[in-house]
Amino acid sequence: MATDLDRLCINTIRTLSMDAVQQANSGHPGTPMAMAPVAYALWQRRLRFDPEDPQWPNRDRFVLSIGHASMLLYSLLHLTGVKAVNAQNEPSGDLAVTLDDIKQFRQLDGKCPGHPEYRWTSGVETTTGPLGQGFANSVGMAIASRWQAATFNRQGFELFNFDVYALGGDGCMMEGLSGEAHSLAAHLKLSNLCWIYDNNRITIEGHTTLAFSEDVGARFIGYGWNVLKVGDANDLDLLDQALQTFKQTTDRPTLIIVDSHIAYGSPNKQDTHAAHGEPLGDEEIALTKRHYGWPEDQQFLVPQGVREHFSHGMGLRGKEARHTWVDLFERYRRAFPDLADHFMRMQRRELPEGWDQALPTFPADAKGLASRDSSGKVLNAIARTVPWLMGGSADLAPSTKTRLTFDEAGDLSATNYKGRNFHFGVREHAMAAILNGLSLSHLRPY
Amino acid sequence: MATDLDRLCINTIRTLSMDAVQQANSGHPGTPMAMAPVAYALWQRRLRFDPEDPQWPNRDRFVLSIGHASMLLYSLLHLTGVKAVNAQNEPSGDLAVTLDDIKQFRQLDGKCPGHPEYRWTSGVETTTGPLGQGFANSVGMAIASRWQAATFNRQGFELFNFDVYALGGDGCMMEGLSGEAHSLAAHLKLSNLCWIYDNNRITIEGHTTLAFSEDVGARFIGYGWNVLKVGDANDLDLLDQALQTFKQTTDRPTLIIVDSHIAYGSPNKQDTHAAHGEPLGDEEIALTKRHYGWPEDQQFLVPQGVREHFSHGMGLRGKEARHTWVDLFERYRRAFPDLADHFMRMQRRELPEGWDQALPTFPADAKGLASRDSSGKVLNAIARTVPWLMGGSADLAPSTKTRLTFDEAGDLSATNYKGRNFHFGVREHAMAAILNGLSLSHLRPY
Repeated sequence: MATDLDRLCINTIRTLSMDAVQQANSGHPGTPMAMAPVAYALWQRRLRFDPEDPQWPNRDRFVLSIGHASMLLYSLLHLTGVKAVNAQNEPSGDLAVTLDDIKQFRQLDGKCPGHPEYRWTSGVETTTGPLGQGFANSVGMAIASRWQAATFNRQGFELFNFDVYALGGDGCMMEGLSGEAHSLAAHLKLSNLCWIYDNNRITIEGHTTLAFSEDVGARFIGYGWNVLKVGDANDLDLLDQALQTFKQTTDRPTLIIVDSHIAYGSPNKQDTHAAHGEPLGDEEIALTKRHYGWPEDQQFLVPQGVREHFSHGMGLRGKEARHTWVDLFERYRRAFPDLADHFMRMQRRELPEGWDQALPTFPADAKGLASRDSSGKVLNAIARTVPWLMGGSADLAPSTKTRLTFDEAGDLSATNYKGRNFHFGVREHAMAAILNGLSLSHLRPY
Repeated sequence: MATDLDRLCINTIRTLSMDAVQQANSGHPGTPMAMAPVAYALWQRRLRFDPEDPQWPNRDRFVLSIGHASMLLYSLLHLTGVKAVNAQNEPSGDLAVTLDDIKQFRQLDGKCPGHPEYRWTSGVETTTGPLGQGFANSVGMAIASRWQAATFNRQGFELFNFDVYALGGDGCMMEGLSGEAHSLAAHLKLSNLCWIYDNNRITIEGHTTLAFSEDVGARFIGYGWNVLKVGDANDLDLLDQALQTFKQTTDRPTLIIVDSHIAYGSPNKQDTHAAHGEPLGDEEIALTKRHYGWPEDQQFLVPQGVREHFSHGMGLRGKEARHTWVDLFERYRRAFPDLADHFMRMQRRELPEGWDQALPTFPADAKGLASRDSSGKVLNAIARTVPWLMGGSADLAPSTKTRLTFDEAGDLSATNYKGRNFHFGVREHAMAAILNGLSLSHLRPY
């Protein structure tokens, strides 16, 4: 059941989004309004994320694949009090997104650009905007979770078990990139991956019936996913049940299809493509706020109790999870100093001592060596000393000589998440996006 | 039932392919060997294509999306006696592919390059090689068939009703591009489109279990296709039944999944990825020929009766269909001279007289006009006088101003194939490949 406080938080996300887009006189209000309850259900009740340390390594990841709906994310980052981090990824004590930052939405040098940018705004897990890209990045992150678990976890030390959530829309589904990525995600049985699909039936050119009539659920079942349906984006209980089912699913990734109404609550623009990429206008905003039972004349209002509610929910859960993890890691460091050293170097994006000692050299000769052959030798030499170097070649490893040939390297698969040779299949675009997801998780992919 | 002559023709395709790859010492023998019966069943028994005029406008199209299996196509072009065309697309009297051309497979300036190239070898409908591309091109061709039917056909004059067949493999299925294209093909209910999927379970890196475990049939049902299964690539009757079912299906495109054995008949290389992209070797070729009941010591053998059999089958059927069409068009030209003139200009890639008379001009001024606005005005001015100019913008027409706004332009859909505004959805890659398919059909897409 949604309490008044739940509704107040959800409507704060909605109204902040509407107001920011109106003030900027450009942006996308409709989807944040529609998806606010979904994001709320996930962040407040499920996501393991400590706003005090947005770079905590075992945090759950939330990827906004529909990057244009950025105000949804900025509202959440603000209301949950996510802290900014400095160049060394340490929390600086400042907020990642202040209310003033939201008022500066889409302004030059502001912390709230039109589409979220990694490392520019703390708490943004990956740069999104091109549709489908975030979905594919999330597959890389889910692999990184599994790979780190297989590599670092030890009996009694479950350092890594984070989940990855990605929120996408019709456009993300239409892009071929997501098809490549979700085929591979099912193949690798990434049960720690949850995609939430905003099924609002509206695109820029109009209703999705113009160009999109497939049965997305059936398609995903064909690809090997667990498919769940939530018939009403406003039903927090159904959303929570679906997220619970995701958590209980151990053999495949989960897709939650959420039927929603773009610009929910706007009397004249709900369910229209006018609400996708334009401000609602002052008059419509007033009418919509009236519908929400919101003070019509107030902009950027964060009612008493909203920040506190997030703090008691997501904030407290995340803090406890992180503190438990930090203690665990301290004990791990004493028990497995070498592994801990590897991990800390990964985190700081450093390389092991002597990583380049065994680099081969190739004397000049008349015929020379094919560059793919020398590349393969160098890759293998580095990979022996950098255990978190890994990659693949979209079904061309025998041609490109990218295979790591020494015994310990192994092949990444659903039964060997420790493997470092990736079989991406003939999926070049997803390969690139997945590599980005791995890199965002501090691995060194090629 | 397969007759001895059927088998002889099929094995001729296989042995020509093996011999050519061996002589070139590079290439892909396995798939032509596996798919020879499928290509035979289609070309010999179904395809409406007159080898005497490979540019006949209402011919059925055959697209080899697995371009690396080019010897399959070159063998067919040779054995069916397809004629070369000159720069004006008129048959020159020479063969498109001679036996000597096949012996020069993969040689510089030869007519049989490693991957088929449009306009270089007559009978090649589109350049293929990058997997999935041919599949997506074929969607454009199927749209072109429907658009031309809606635009030119008149009561008693069914000028256009050609079908489009495309042959692809696991790689084509993995590429996101094909996902975009087949979603749109189902949306547009292109029942004149038939994809044949070579399900051989082998990729360059090894068995498809390395990276591909989806249920392709279920996926396509989700996308809205008619899905058929042929459990044995060598069963000509099952193949013919499937092709017949395609012909009888009027509301959706058809996928025929054909289970096959790469390098069929090779005692040591069948079902292995070694047979994908390397010559079999002289010894293995001899063993394979023995398996086929073929003279082991003969290369590039075309037994007596093979060319004649193709000539009596596909050749005769294509010739009759084309002659009937040419007569029909002569009568059409008298009944509808303006339409016929349009069509002939399209064929010659010319523009109508005065196509540029109404082009707007834009006087210099301080502020100027956004280039997307001037572009939109120019596009509309040209489109009014060039009825075969059409296009779209992957769900961005309101932003890019590419919409043709005059009444007659209309929107392309499953209920209006005459429409000239395309709604590609958020599918940029497929859009580009579909435009190529339209252009290959002599439309002017943007």
